[in-house]
Amino acid sequence: MKGAIPPATVSRLPVYLRCLGDLPPGQSTCSSEQVAAIAGVNSAQVRKDLSHLGSRGVRGVGYSVQVLRDQLRAALGLDRGYAVAIAGAGNLGAALGNYGGFAAWGFRLEGLFDTDPDKIGTEVGGHRVEAMTDLEEIVRLRRVTIGIVATPASAAQLVADRFVSAGLTAILNFAPTVIQVPDHVTVRRVDLSTELQILTFHLKDK
Amino acid sequence: MKGAIPPATVSRLPVYLRCLGDLPPGQSTCSSEQVAAIAGVNSAQVRKDLSHLGSRGVRGVGYSVQVLRDQLRAALGLDRGYAVAIAGAGNLGAALGNYGGFAAWGFRLEGLFDTDPDKIGTEVGGHRVEAMTDLEEIVRLRRVTIGIVATPASAAQLVADRFVSAGLTAILNFAPTVIQVPDHVTVRRVDLSTELQILTFHLKDK
Repeated sequence: MKGAIPPATVSRLPVYLRCLGDLPPGQSTCSSEQVAAIAGVNSAQVRKDLSHLGSRGVRGVGYSVQVLRDQLRAALGLDRGYAVAIAGAGNLGAALGNYGGFAAWGFRLEGLFDTDPDKIGTEVGGHRVEAMTDLEEIVRLRRVTIGIVATPASAAQLVADRFVSAGLTAILNFAPTVIQVPDHVTVRRVDLSTELQILTFHLKDK
Repeated sequence: MKGAIPPATVSRLPVYLRCLGDLPPGQSTCSSEQVAAIAGVNSAQVRKDLSHLGSRGVRGVGYSVQVLRDQLRAALGLDRGYAVAIAGAGNLGAALGNYGGFAAWGFRLEGLFDTDPDKIGTEVGGHRVEAMTDLEEIVRLRRVTIGIVATPASAAQLVADRFVSAGLTAILNFAPTVIQVPDHVTVRRVDLSTELQILTFHLKDK
């Protein structure tokens, strides 16, 4: 199925999944128009995107919320309960560690690392901050699959190298810098100002 | 120009702008293939997206980095130097306040607000935390255009209401909840786990 889903569709799947969570509680079916209104895309796009999952609404009834949620979760691989580790327990790392959204989507936070002796041993969102020197060992032991880089830009490459040497093949980079990884590792970079820039686009003609 | 640019293209413009910053220093022209490789999309898509800005590369030469940067900044409205205020000086608000990326894109942080007496008056990333009770007055005085909600979900609607009553027409919501605003206000919601979910999609077939 992977090859068949266009990247632009993939990037909308998490949005659709979140939209289902925003429906009134107890609602068992939803229309593409309803999802489209919450997601801020047009309904033809929603129907086309969902057809890639093999999901087709029933005319006059719409989609089953439960079935659609399961299909979206399976397509995104969220039913696998991936273990995640965060490097950097500063404000951003702590915000991510406290972030309820990860657990809600099935991710388990299995490590939060820092180099600062004042932070090591403290608790952040129920997680004990561990020493960066133990990163490789803990990542292997707890079968972590995804590494999150939440360090300053200057430490990002070093941390990414350590994640890679511990065997991770997926890295999410919040540091404002490019990191180099071998071909078998997938990196996505998150720029916290991206959404602000998109908002500005819509604002400028007001 | 606004009506002519499809939403999917708009969402890629900040990515292209960031890619230009990731080019080797001193490089004055770039090819669509180069931008595509950094952005992780195909080069035909890059050329099509950039043509919406009136930007066409010269065969064998590519695009002028400086011209393209100016066009992207103008299209996104980043040349206007919008003032931004953040409600909530917890880990996430502090991470955003410390985030160098905002200033780099031309946004000025003109207010960081919290209700916690222990936080009010302290400094975060060079910004003094101010009392939430002063939000409306300060937002008006400093001509803030964009409000960022970085509070817990339970406080998000109240804060959004206050931003709206202070006259803001654009809100970026980091709280994991839906907020209701009048029609003349634009809201974008940021889910920190979206990129993690997209990463998982690519991971699951490995």
